[in-house]
Amino acid sequence: MAAEKWVLSVTAQTPTNIAVIKYWGKRDEELILPINDSISVTLDPGHLCTTTSVAVSPAFTHDRIWLNGKEVSLSGGRFQNVLREIRSRATDYEDEKRGIKITKKDWEKLCVHIVSYNNFPTAAGLASSAAGLACLVFSLAKLMNVKEDHSQLSAIARQGSGSACRSLYGGFVKWIMGKEDNGSDSIAVQLADEKHWDDLVIIIAVVSSKQKETSSTSGMRDTVETSELIKHRAKEVVPKRIKEMEAAIAKCDFPSFARLACADSNQIISCVEKLNRHEGTPQVAYTFDAGPNAVLISKDRKTAALLLQRLLFQFPPQSDADLNSYVIGDKTILKDAGIEDLKDIEALAPPPENASTQRCKGDVSYFICTKPGRGPVVLADESQSLINPETGLPK
Amino acid sequence: MAAEKWVLSVTAQTPTNIAVIKYWGKRDEELILPINDSISVTLDPGHLCTTTSVAVSPAFTHDRIWLNGKEVSLSGGRFQNVLREIRSRATDYEDEKRGIKITKKDWEKLCVHIVSYNNFPTAAGLASSAAGLACLVFSLAKLMNVKEDHSQLSAIARQGSGSACRSLYGGFVKWIMGKEDNGSDSIAVQLADEKHWDDLVIIIAVVSSKQKETSSTSGMRDTVETSELIKHRAKEVVPKRIKEMEAAIAKCDFPSFARLACADSNQIISCVEKLNRHEGTPQVAYTFDAGPNAVLISKDRKTAALLLQRLLFQFPPQSDADLNSYVIGDKTILKDAGIEDLKDIEALAPPPENASTQRCKGDVSYFICTKPGRGPVVLADESQSLINPETGLPK
Repeated sequence: MAAEKWVLSVTAQTPTNIAVIKYWGKRDEELILPINDSISVTLDPGHLCTTTSVAVSPAFTHDRIWLNGKEVSLSGGRFQNVLREIRSRATDYEDEKRGIKITKKDWEKLCVHIVSYNNFPTAAGLASSAAGLACLVFSLAKLMNVKEDHSQLSAIARQGSGSACRSLYGGFVKWIMGKEDNGSDSIAVQLADEKHWDDLVIIIAVVSSKQKETSSTSGMRDTVETSELIKHRAKEVVPKRIKEMEAAIAKCDFPSFARLACADSNQIISCVEKLNRHEGTPQVAYTFDAGPNAVLISKDRKTAALLLQRLLFQFPPQSDADLNSYVIGDKTILKDAGIEDLKDIEALAPPPENASTQRCKGDVSYFICTKPGRGPVVLADESQSLINPETGLPK
Repeated sequence: MAAEKWVLSVTAQTPTNIAVIKYWGKRDEELILPINDSISVTLDPGHLCTTTSVAVSPAFTHDRIWLNGKEVSLSGGRFQNVLREIRSRATDYEDEKRGIKITKKDWEKLCVHIVSYNNFPTAAGLASSAAGLACLVFSLAKLMNVKEDHSQLSAIARQGSGSACRSLYGGFVKWIMGKEDNGSDSIAVQLADEKHWDDLVIIIAVVSSKQKETSSTSGMRDTVETSELIKHRAKEVVPKRIKEMEAAIAKCDFPSFARLACADSNQIISCVEKLNRHEGTPQVAYTFDAGPNAVLISKDRKTAALLLQRLLFQFPPQSDADLNSYVIGDKTILKDAGIEDLKDIEALAPPPENASTQRCKGDVSYFICTKPGRGPVVLADESQSLINPETGLPK
């Protein structure tokens, strides 16, 4: 390494991506290893991308980063993961003309400056972190003369931000979940490049930036059942969709692509829209609370029974399911819908307004039927207390 | 306070709620003060509720809490906020029969045991924290003989979990954002009780528990513009909806209720569904990335132009907007759609498949038109570097 005060830099540009089969849960939080494959479309970097310059110099005294014009802390675990992984793969570099020689060992000591900009408004939902982390990995790898290919780099980007691994390729990209504990095989691969299906046009409607009506900061949450549901989904539902989506992309088959890209909750909305349209006036309102669960508000019991028939036709339970735990809450709606056991669900006719509805077994975990209710009450009956009156401990 | 080892307890039950006009941002993170009003429907506690027992005893040595059968830490700021606020409002209590006398001062010293259960599966998205925190506040207030009414208690519940304040009432509830810095007027009020509109039936489809395809843990995010968008929305869009929703509830006007409950992104999906249905085969696929932004993938440019006409008819920009920043990215789609300035948007005809479409000015922040793109590249041209080659600092 020469003593002069040289600055060696690399600038790179990396696209963002939109998942069309999403990832739903992690098997390792630290390494960011998912429990299912996912597939994305890379977006044109002319419209949405990150540009990052990275530089080293013997004059730099510590690692620093500026994002969108503002210096921020580099102490975050994700940045540190990326820096550590790239440095460990650095190789010798020489620029004879400038008299710069950096050995593998030198890279460990050289401090880096990172300057990064997004070319699009940084609103939540535009996956700026995917482009940003991918660009950080890609530019650092170029700077430090890392010899690994894009797939191997994707495994490093993944440790910075899961979906970033898919931004190492253009076109249509699959993030393979992998099986290894160390995540070495949880990488992105290109399914087809951007020329393969270039008819597609993507319009993103930025409706608002961040919805706060979710209680992610609450302490009153138990995630055990959550992860059971996610596991079921990852094992039973997603693998089939991944295969179908790969085939749809290979054949540029838009109807299949469209059907697969629509998330489950959207399929439910679609079902509601069709019912409303068929009836002429709105019969069912819908909203989402925290997460992707759809909340459907029917104008009356008659409509609710009609709706439940459609929902159970489209989203039947698994063959080994218990109807009693698949539709919970007010079960009289089930009765109104003429359903008393699983056979009645099997025998349901497709909705008249959409005879071609496909049946998607297992996509919905369960339904809850309920109605507007009363406010808080005191339960005066001692038998309903959860606390033992003698010990003051839980009963 | 008597010396005996008595246990004094109260048990209460509190419902959960589903917002039909949601809250979108906070003006104070610590006090949980929102930047717009919101409206919810309280759900039947027979199907979804929290039951909580709280107890005090001279024998208890520290505050403890058990949630769904498991003891958890009470050190979280939200629990502590609630405990502090309730204790400061405690009043003298006497049970002559049991010989228990607790003065306002005694409450500060008495330790509390809290035992809480949800009667529904704790999956993300079911607002368990709303019911839970509301029940904690309500039961502690009863135990400690707090004389304040439900609205005043709602301001305490709000500090535990924002949406919890709406669970202090049954039926239809409005959370008034308030103006005071200390949050004293950010409270819930009942718009109508659960008997007022008891035709409604609510079906919740639990499609999966938690979607991970959002990068909330990423460091590469800037929230400045985000909050500008949220502020605009809170100021321009939500107040009108709150008024209309109050009127719809007062009149049990289901069509208006349904229209208002559907979030913006759902209105966009509805627009897409109608277009697809009109054309007979899928023309546009849709998905969501992080947050509520809708991502619409059209099969070709012709469809994209048709879609953009519909989107701009339904979601025109504000009158003072700049078309150039309302539709960004590939502007040739705009041209294909025959739109060159704001007047062309004004002059758009309603979509033939849905002539009654309402125009919702300002609901969408902006649109991005783009297409599948290439992967990462190195920008070799020195002028594109973001780092000054002399100083190693941002240009």
